[in-house]
Amino acid sequence: MSISAEIICIGTELLLGEILNSNAQYLATQLAALGISHFYQTVVGDNPDRIQKVLAIAAGRSNLIITTGGLGPTPDDLTTETIASFFDAPLTERPEVWDDIIQKFKSLGRELTENNRKQALLPVGADILPNPIGSAPGMIWQPQPGLLILTFPGIPSEMYAMWQQTAIPLLHAKGWVKQVFHSRVLSYWGITESGLAERVQKFFDLTNPTVAPYANYGQARLRITACAATQSQAQNLIAPVEAEILQLTGADCYGTDDDTLASVVGDALKRNQQTLAVAESCTGGWLGEMITAMPGSSSYFLGGMISYSNAAKINLLDVSPSDLEQYGAVSEQVAIQMSIGAKVKLKSDWGISITGIAGPDGGSAEKPVGLVYIGIADPDGDSIAIRHTFSPHRDRDWIRRVSACSALDHLRRRFVMINK
Amino acid sequence: MSISAEIICIGTELLLGEILNSNAQYLATQLAALGISHFYQTVVGDNPDRIQKVLAIAAGRSNLIITTGGLGPTPDDLTTETIASFFDAPLTERPEVWDDIIQKFKSLGRELTENNRKQALLPVGADILPNPIGSAPGMIWQPQPGLLILTFPGIPSEMYAMWQQTAIPLLHAKGWVKQVFHSRVLSYWGITESGLAERVQKFFDLTNPTVAPYANYGQARLRITACAATQSQAQNLIAPVEAEILQLTGADCYGTDDDTLASVVGDALKRNQQTLAVAESCTGGWLGEMITAMPGSSSYFLGGMISYSNAAKINLLDVSPSDLEQYGAVSEQVAIQMSIGAKVKLKSDWGISITGIAGPDGGSAEKPVGLVYIGIADPDGDSIAIRHTFSPHRDRDWIRRVSACSALDHLRRRFVMINK
Repeated sequence: MSISAEIICIGTELLLGEILNSNAQYLATQLAALGISHFYQTVVGDNPDRIQKVLAIAAGRSNLIITTGGLGPTPDDLTTETIASFFDAPLTERPEVWDDIIQKFKSLGRELTENNRKQALLPVGADILPNPIGSAPGMIWQPQPGLLILTFPGIPSEMYAMWQQTAIPLLHAKGWVKQVFHSRVLSYWGITESGLAERVQKFFDLTNPTVAPYANYGQARLRITACAATQSQAQNLIAPVEAEILQLTGADCYGTDDDTLASVVGDALKRNQQTLAVAESCTGGWLGEMITAMPGSSSYFLGGMISYSNAAKINLLDVSPSDLEQYGAVSEQVAIQMSIGAKVKLKSDWGISITGIAGPDGGSAEKPVGLVYIGIADPDGDSIAIRHTFSPHRDRDWIRRVSACSALDHLRRRFVMINK
Repeated sequence: MSISAEIICIGTELLLGEILNSNAQYLATQLAALGISHFYQTVVGDNPDRIQKVLAIAAGRSNLIITTGGLGPTPDDLTTETIASFFDAPLTERPEVWDDIIQKFKSLGRELTENNRKQALLPVGADILPNPIGSAPGMIWQPQPGLLILTFPGIPSEMYAMWQQTAIPLLHAKGWVKQVFHSRVLSYWGITESGLAERVQKFFDLTNPTVAPYANYGQARLRITACAATQSQAQNLIAPVEAEILQLTGADCYGTDDDTLASVVGDALKRNQQTLAVAESCTGGWLGEMITAMPGSSSYFLGGMISYSNAAKINLLDVSPSDLEQYGAVSEQVAIQMSIGAKVKLKSDWGISITGIAGPDGGSAEKPVGLVYIGIADPDGDSIAIRHTFSPHRDRDWIRRVSACSALDHLRRRFVMINK
């Protein structure tokens, strides 16, 4: 039997836009990873009539229905009773569920209400889908031949735990997981999505693994996805394609999977037993924030200066007042002096600086919003400045975020160049 | 006619879980604000057969269908042609759309491909739903009596602009907006959601306006929502309830609607013509980043030091080496000296500092992960330190983010106290 799953998310709060439907995305990713097709997702409110209409449609086109939401104790939580009624099955109280609910409330010191009792009701014939975290269990129920229903609460942490602990083993046990999808992500900086796509065009025609580009916030990525019977077979399909792509794209690829620019730079500094200091103007601390988001960054990051005002540039970083006057705060001269100032004041091996005009105000014809200089002072005593000009349609947030990432990327490339 | 809308989001990337369906949430919020009911949302892939099945269901139960996605130039963008074919309408090229696409590509310096030409096709009888940003317009089409279809691209910024510029006026012009929902959000810091809920419990029974609490990242909020014929009538319903809640909750409320702690602190500094400097250890620049996220922050923010290492605390901020040794870097003594150091070095009116253990490593029995001190040096030359201890289940990101927000909140409360 070819399995076709369908996701139904139940909750009026979704129809009102009060919450983002992250549950659908989670389940979609999970189903894709297991190689189980799903072609439809539906959102419906806490209304028994409309829930039943959606069930009728889903039961007619899918053989695995996964619901989220509506398992709570309040009167608008209607999922279990509505599903039971649609398939004409009576509800019965499950003593083991009720005992579990009592225990959970006791251990939390919370008071049980009579409402909670309804969470122990399941249709006759349904199995319990245990909830290791919250009070509401789900159900595993085959109400008619060729149709399996799994219900989950809407609270993401509970849903994830139930999916991992019970649903995945169940789908394997049923023999529905015929193949595994495994992905490898290659992350790029300093190249556009279309530029990257051009260089690896020929891989887009592959069918297993597939190669697809995507982009966000100045970053381009390639995802290589293979489908095989096991994860290691999928990895074996990915490996040669990944190697070939890396050969073609070289230093523009900064890392894989969960790597960030900050983690890659941190690893390079650790490997070389070198330290870093920063001097930030328009980014206001964002570069430091990114670097220190990494646990253990204190072993290579000494600190820095947020030299937002000209006085701060002079007093904290020894930027030359006459250069500030002659070239302006956003200039290669000042960027270089800031990077040297950070390095000297903090006695670090490397200094990086950022000075720019993030807007929306403060631009001029000569120095428009989006003009940013990045300075790098290196361990040999040399220093460089790199000029970036962002397109006029970029906003303050984009300019600041991408400037901080670019500064990390320029430092990263220095380590690539010296092959460390 | 009572209008019932339905949202259909088209894109295989949604079924694969590659992106979160934020478009559905945006449209849901917008429909709710206009008082237009919608009872169903569907996600379907880039498959003409399944898109038509979904259209058939939607056309049978709703009279306003809003689609997102599938308007791009590539072969898997099928929305327009599939809708046209479902209602047996031929497509015709709209010269004004094609001209607009040519102009947009020219101004971006991008090359047009023959693929883009299909974006100028619309069903006969459909009006253009202009896209002020991207190349793909949508359509406004009544393919049969009692059914209106609006199509939007999947790119959120384009969809938002098209919704605001064209769809909202259209829905008003059709007389479908019978009532307006208007909300006012009150934002709190330094009080838990449940603590806040207790203090305003009695308002939760109101029906118009309604009052509902929510929370994220240490911040509690109350949303007051009124329904009326016009926005100003809704505002009149909200005003007395808001006033009464503010009376009850006092200084814990830091702002309304789009206010952030950083914007409120910035406004207070501007009002008082005072300046601020920061000294950050565990937050690594995040406090500075939050402050400088505000356009115009250079009028009150001078800069600061990211004193991640002990040497940086000594060299940049004149923290006493013997106090560092005796009390440790995470201590009230060091927090106070850091705040004074920032104030003195940058000649600002106020100095704020943060020093703490964000984890996951670096904690001890005496000073566990989650211990954070915030220092404030004020314009009168006085200074204080405030000790925070975060629960052991808080992670590095939470501790850093909430510490930076708390530092802003402590400064904000100083302005409230002195009634400025």
